[in-house]
Amino acid sequence: MFPRPSGIVTLCTDFGLDDVYVGVMKGALLRASGKVQVVDLGHAVPPQDVAAGAFQLWAAIGRFPGGTVHVGVVDPGVGTARAVVAVFAHGDYWIVPDNGLIAAVVAGDPAAEARALDLDHLGVRPASDTFHGRDVMAPVAAMLAAGRYGFRALGPRVELQAGEDPVFGGGARVVHVDRFGNLVSNVTAAQLGGAGRVEVGGREAPVVRTYAEVPPGQLLAYVGAFGLLEVGVNGGSAAAALGLGTGAAIRWLPA
Amino acid sequence: MFPRPSGIVTLCTDFGLDDVYVGVMKGALLRASGKVQVVDLGHAVPPQDVAAGAFQLWAAIGRFPGGTVHVGVVDPGVGTARAVVAVFAHGDYWIVPDNGLIAAVVAGDPAAEARALDLDHLGVRPASDTFHGRDVMAPVAAMLAAGRYGFRALGPRVELQAGEDPVFGGGARVVHVDRFGNLVSNVTAAQLGGAGRVEVGGREAPVVRTYAEVPPGQLLAYVGAFGLLEVGVNGGSAAAALGLGTGAAIRWLPA
Amino acid sequence: MFPRPSGIVTLCTDFGLDDVYVGVMKGALLRASGKVQVVDLGHAVPPQDVAAGAFQLWAAIGRFPGGTVHVGVVDPGVGTARAVVAVFAHGDYWIVPDNGLIAAVVAGDPAAEARALDLDHLGVRPASDTFHGRDVMAPVAAMLAAGRYGFRALGPRVELQAGEDPVFGGGARVVHVDRFGNLVSNVTAAQLGGAGRVEVGGREAPVVRTYAEVPPGQLLAYVGAFGLLEVGVNGGSAAAALGLGTGAAIRWLPA
Repeated sequence: MFPRPSGIVTLCTDFGLDDVYVGVMKGALLRASGKVQVVDLGHAVPPQDVAAGAFQLWAAIGRFPGGTVHVGVVDPGVGTARAVVAVFAHGDYWIVPDNGLIAAVVAGDPAAEARALDLDHLGVRPASDTFHGRDVMAPVAAMLAAGRYGFRALGPRVELQAGEDPVFGGGARVVHVDRFGNLVSNVTAAQLGGAGRVEVGGREAPVVRTYAEVPPGQLLAYVGAFGLLEVGVNGGSAAAALGLGTGAAIRWLPA
Repeated sequence: MFPRPSGIVTLCTDFGLDDVYVGVMKGALLRASGKVQVVDLGHAVPPQDVAAGAFQLWAAIGRFPGGTVHVGVVDPGVGTARAVVAVFAHGDYWIVPDNGLIAAVVAGDPAAEARALDLDHLGVRPASDTFHGRDVMAPVAAMLAAGRYGFRALGPRVELQAGEDPVFGGGARVVHVDRFGNLVSNVTAAQLGGAGRVEVGGREAPVVRTYAEVPPGQLLAYVGAFGLLEVGVNGGSAAAALGLGTGAAIRWLPA
Repeated sequence: MFPRPSGIVTLCTDFGLDDVYVGVMKGALLRASGKVQVVDLGHAVPPQDVAAGAFQLWAAIGRFPGGTVHVGVVDPGVGTARAVVAVFAHGDYWIVPDNGLIAAVVAGDPAAEARALDLDHLGVRPASDTFHGRDVMAPVAAMLAAGRYGFRALGPRVELQAGEDPVFGGGARVVHVDRFGNLVSNVTAAQLGGAGRVEVGGREAPVVRTYAEVPPGQLLAYVGAFGLLEVGVNGGSAAAALGLGTGAAIRWLPA
């Protein structure tokens, strides 16, 4: 029922790359098991921005070999009673604080299942109250990825406390702005259907397939690499052209 | 004739590290083959700056084990008719859009050979029209690096469309400014010959071997780690001191 | 006496990630041995800031499998007579320029031992005078990590020239500001003892165990993940709230 781990652990954090936090998390993974392969998913989640982290984790669904272990650390409540959980969803494993970070991932998989980590049973004794990414999530992820413990052995089954899906809950809106200034929405290709135009920030953009279908400098809408509706500018930045960012409302209109 | 792949894939993109694009490209590589080892060459190429990307790819020549596969993704024309090609040059393999990104690499190897990817034959079906780095280049690179397909099996031989070498073509000039503010030119040690002074931005710098040969705060010129003429400031930033950047003309003078 | 290498090499540099320097260092490691596993400790040390690099290296002590090789490149004197040394300390190996970068690491291990690299014996011929990270430290680290040379075979035993410990020497002060704006001091938990309050920048903070023990927006002091006294703000940035950075004096007071 639970797939064999791929041996890969991905990391998604709000630590940035200026500190050694990501490096020492990798050290903790390798101390727990020399066999795991670590991949950075992203470390530029704005500090303590659970919704932005939830988007990055959601974007990893189906993108790695099945049975990959994803570790998400955006954890404003570290040191409080919030649980750290292991989740099985979409064929992968996810180790996260139970604070909504995993809500977009589990919303899409009705068979998702969560376990509360039984640290005593796993022999994990956190050395700090402020860095559970290193002291709890990394070693547990490594033990799971290396096959030392199966998913069910990590702890008792629990219901997630995390509330509304911070990505796909609420209205149609921009949920991410990428480096190119593309406005990535939470509208799926299925929702968009055969719509011909999109309205955002009082401007309209035609729905096309690729950038080159509009002249340079022109606004366009398209289903991007995430399978979500995006608004861009051919050869430019839609975020700059429209002065818009995360949270901007978006709607779609018949052709 | 074509060397055995090293099993290493390097990535050079304009994606930055704030998005998950690099992470999901690594996922696509690992989905295509669990055996490849991925190394980041650089992801800070300015968005859609083909010349800057061409410099970074050129800088990788000879720096990795022979038979390494280098993937370059600076791709303003994604989704248009521009081809994606595999190139063999300098003993390594290069997977790039045919838009000039590889021009500096191939300019230095008269025996360079290009193949147009035959995606049908390779069983690669792009899931998007906007992210060929993930959907085309990553899986093909992994298949080549893992030895599943040889170079010749990737597709028919083609001539590259890419035009002038964006790094070494044109006049002597600064082509890169590094983090330390060193001005890296496109002038090779061979071109420099026995020159004793360099002029840039109306200022002269003596040609020396190391920083310490001039007093702190003074301008110097030297053949740097790329084998190219650079202008620096001992303990400081030449870019800041001279107010110069990429494109600034440079000339060398007898001692 | 000297532990078997873990096969892992960590990198700590002031190169940033905008250039290809880190990428080509990894190429040099892999050219010297295809068997090593490379982990980024940190590349955002401010240019030529030896004290900041010393802190990052110190933070790696005990965080990786025993016998890991750590390479530190913050090297304002590259090309001058300063030696490159291999150090055994805290159960790990360290390859660094002898300029103080390793002083905080060796200060904590009376049994630390240094060797001057015998490049002729090792067959290492630097291709440049400006990039010993790539041309000297990377190949030697790979040879040590792969077990091709033992520690004693790297060269003759030497005394380190590096002077005072730039992290723990001098008075109690802030030595690092992290991404969250936490002020990390050089005061250890043992020094702090049972202190109840901390004074920094004319403000007092109670010593607590976790962020959540003070109201949002309030200042707190705690022993952080490094085992050092830190000052933070619950849900905010202490650096911003106090207008303080590295070097700010800190003192601790009875409860």
